[in-house]
Amino acid sequence: MLPLQTKPMHIQELETPAIVVDLAVMESNIRSMAEYCQSHGFGLRPHTKTHKIPAIARMQVDAGSRGITVAKPGEAEVMSGAGLDDILVHYPVFGDSKLDRLAVLARERKIILAVDSPVTAEAISRAASRAGSSIRILVEFDSGMRRCGVASPDNVEALAQQIAKLPNVTFSGITTYPGHIWDEPAHQGSAVAELSAKFQAILDRLRRSGFECEIVSAGSTPAARSSHLASQLTEIRPGTYVFNDRNTMGVGACTLADCALRVLVTVVSTAVSGRAVVDGGSKTFSSDRWISGTKNGFGLVVEHPEVEFATMSEEHGTLELGDSGYSPKVGDRLTIVPNHVCACVNLHDQLHYHRDSIVEGAWQVAGRGKVR
Amino acid sequence: MLPLQTKPMHIQELETPAIVVDLAVMESNIRSMAEYCQSHGFGLRPHTKTHKIPAIARMQVDAGSRGITVAKPGEAEVMSGAGLDDILVHYPVFGDSKLDRLAVLARERKIILAVDSPVTAEAISRAASRAGSSIRILVEFDSGMRRCGVASPDNVEALAQQIAKLPNVTFSGITTYPGHIWDEPAHQGSAVAELSAKFQAILDRLRRSGFECEIVSAGSTPAARSSHLASQLTEIRPGTYVFNDRNTMGVGACTLADCALRVLVTVVSTAVSGRAVVDGGSKTFSSDRWISGTKNGFGLVVEHPEVEFATMSEEHGTLELGDSGYSPKVGDRLTIVPNHVCACVNLHDQLHYHRDSIVEGAWQVAGRGKVR
Repeated sequence: MLPLQTKPMHIQELETPAIVVDLAVMESNIRSMAEYCQSHGFGLRPHTKTHKIPAIARMQVDAGSRGITVAKPGEAEVMSGAGLDDILVHYPVFGDSKLDRLAVLARERKIILAVDSPVTAEAISRAASRAGSSIRILVEFDSGMRRCGVASPDNVEALAQQIAKLPNVTFSGITTYPGHIWDEPAHQGSAVAELSAKFQAILDRLRRSGFECEIVSAGSTPAARSSHLASQLTEIRPGTYVFNDRNTMGVGACTLADCALRVLVTVVSTAVSGRAVVDGGSKTFSSDRWISGTKNGFGLVVEHPEVEFATMSEEHGTLELGDSGYSPKVGDRLTIVPNHVCACVNLHDQLHYHRDSIVEGAWQVAGRGKVR
Repeated sequence: MLPLQTKPMHIQELETPAIVVDLAVMESNIRSMAEYCQSHGFGLRPHTKTHKIPAIARMQVDAGSRGITVAKPGEAEVMSGAGLDDILVHYPVFGDSKLDRLAVLARERKIILAVDSPVTAEAISRAASRAGSSIRILVEFDSGMRRCGVASPDNVEALAQQIAKLPNVTFSGITTYPGHIWDEPAHQGSAVAELSAKFQAILDRLRRSGFECEIVSAGSTPAARSSHLASQLTEIRPGTYVFNDRNTMGVGACTLADCALRVLVTVVSTAVSGRAVVDGGSKTFSSDRWISGTKNGFGLVVEHPEVEFATMSEEHGTLELGDSGYSPKVGDRLTIVPNHVCACVNLHDQLHYHRDSIVEGAWQVAGRGKVR
């Protein structure tokens, strides 16, 4: 048992590396995205893969989200176990034991899956039949990312027809992941117009066969604020917006002030000239690149933005001082905004949260490691 | 924890993604490195950051290792708690509470730290004094990696002098991380000769001031088998060799048959032409690149080596089929050798181990997430 804390702890008293979340910034991010969606009349189903923390999912739902998104059955179980409902597993889950787990959840929760093949739809139907439950299915189409999703309106319609014939599943709509829309928000108009035209062509094709879509879903954080330009959408699924990160900044979809999560590190070596080593590397930040920027560097050093976070080993982060004028000393504490916050959080058991730098508590990253 | 099993389980019955370790291959890797070191008369202190599993560390010690290496105090605590001793924390740990934790461990275990600054040595001395324990210190020098380590024999000698004056710490030797030696083993001769000359110059300088080195330490897996060319070494610290990976293969330091750890995945989407998606991405493999190869690709697909594991999202791995002739179907199971096994293991709570593909059990990755 920890001793009762009698005096407030400042985040700079935490052992490093420490992941800290500014509650005021996170709450503002949650509220602002919810207000954007409400003002345009569509729903928000945040992807919880960014945080994997039921308490944050609950805050997102309380702000007006219609439900949540997850990627894996294990994440659905964690969120369901904490009382969350209306869970879209936006993944073509395959494997009988995994689908059985979801079908059991579907006895008590509204569970939706995204599929792009009849063999997966059939496996879901069999699992739901075994469990005596019902699962909703969205057909995923490829809007340009070339990852998952069927290619054409005819393919969507054919798969909807196959799903309609299966027991214990319901065709409930269409979905895509527009991960290829990675322009600055100000320049997203034509890409979102193209996406909108694709949705419309599919909806027209489905309507001719008598299919209505309860759900028309898309969304990622970089393109989120252009979603009103695709009038077909009933909901979007951004994830990263809850914290934001250097990649989101790089694409112009947030500012540094909107980055709620920072990594606190300590300088542990200054022995090599022109460099300094901090106590976090790829096992603290992930190796994800600055894909919206120069591709170089593993994070933004807030106190010294002109210093390059140049290379990483597993537990060493090497800063190139260049002509920044920064003269690091062993023991200096620095604050870093990671390139990709989802991958960073996934490396940690715990995030500390604070107001005005005073630690208020810590969340367990309960969905971390649920790869199945 | 596995359920009680009445019939043997084949690894292909495991839910994917699953990390599986072939015990026979791992045992051979452990034995072979131990024999190499014994035959040349120096010690082996394996870096356990690769697996973070006390049971594997115990196997390494039982095969003749003199002790183990870790990177973080939390890893030292996990290993110590499982009964392992003679623990080198090869990291310039800084921060009073972290050093206090190590100093408390040092009451019952032999604890060694690597440092490259007087301020860190002084902090270690103060922590050991508070705990009433004694900690051994190695001075780290930079042999070309330009990460940590002082620059010259004079710098090593000056730091040794400072350590010698401090209470509750003992200067015990010198160390370097030759992570820059990344040629094929057959071409490592001149790089190791250069390393050997640097060791000798430092040892000569120290001897003139009356310092003897109990420990002269180096080592990484790519350069491990050239260590006998540096006669000054008393021990080496390879880590990756226990499992090996695609980067180790790329540098010619192992073959595919020596790769004890594989990632089992399932094809979950074939909807996009010319591609297939498997159910593991950067949260299963890490984003680490094939630095010893073309820099491209996130792993070797064992069944179809001509297929490129081209891109990843967090939970999606996208294969480019090219003209491989492979026609994937949803549900196909594939086996992938990751680029960087240490970063891959660090993402998982559990590794399954098997003999001849029959699962014998699972290890918890007990040191995972111990970033502090």
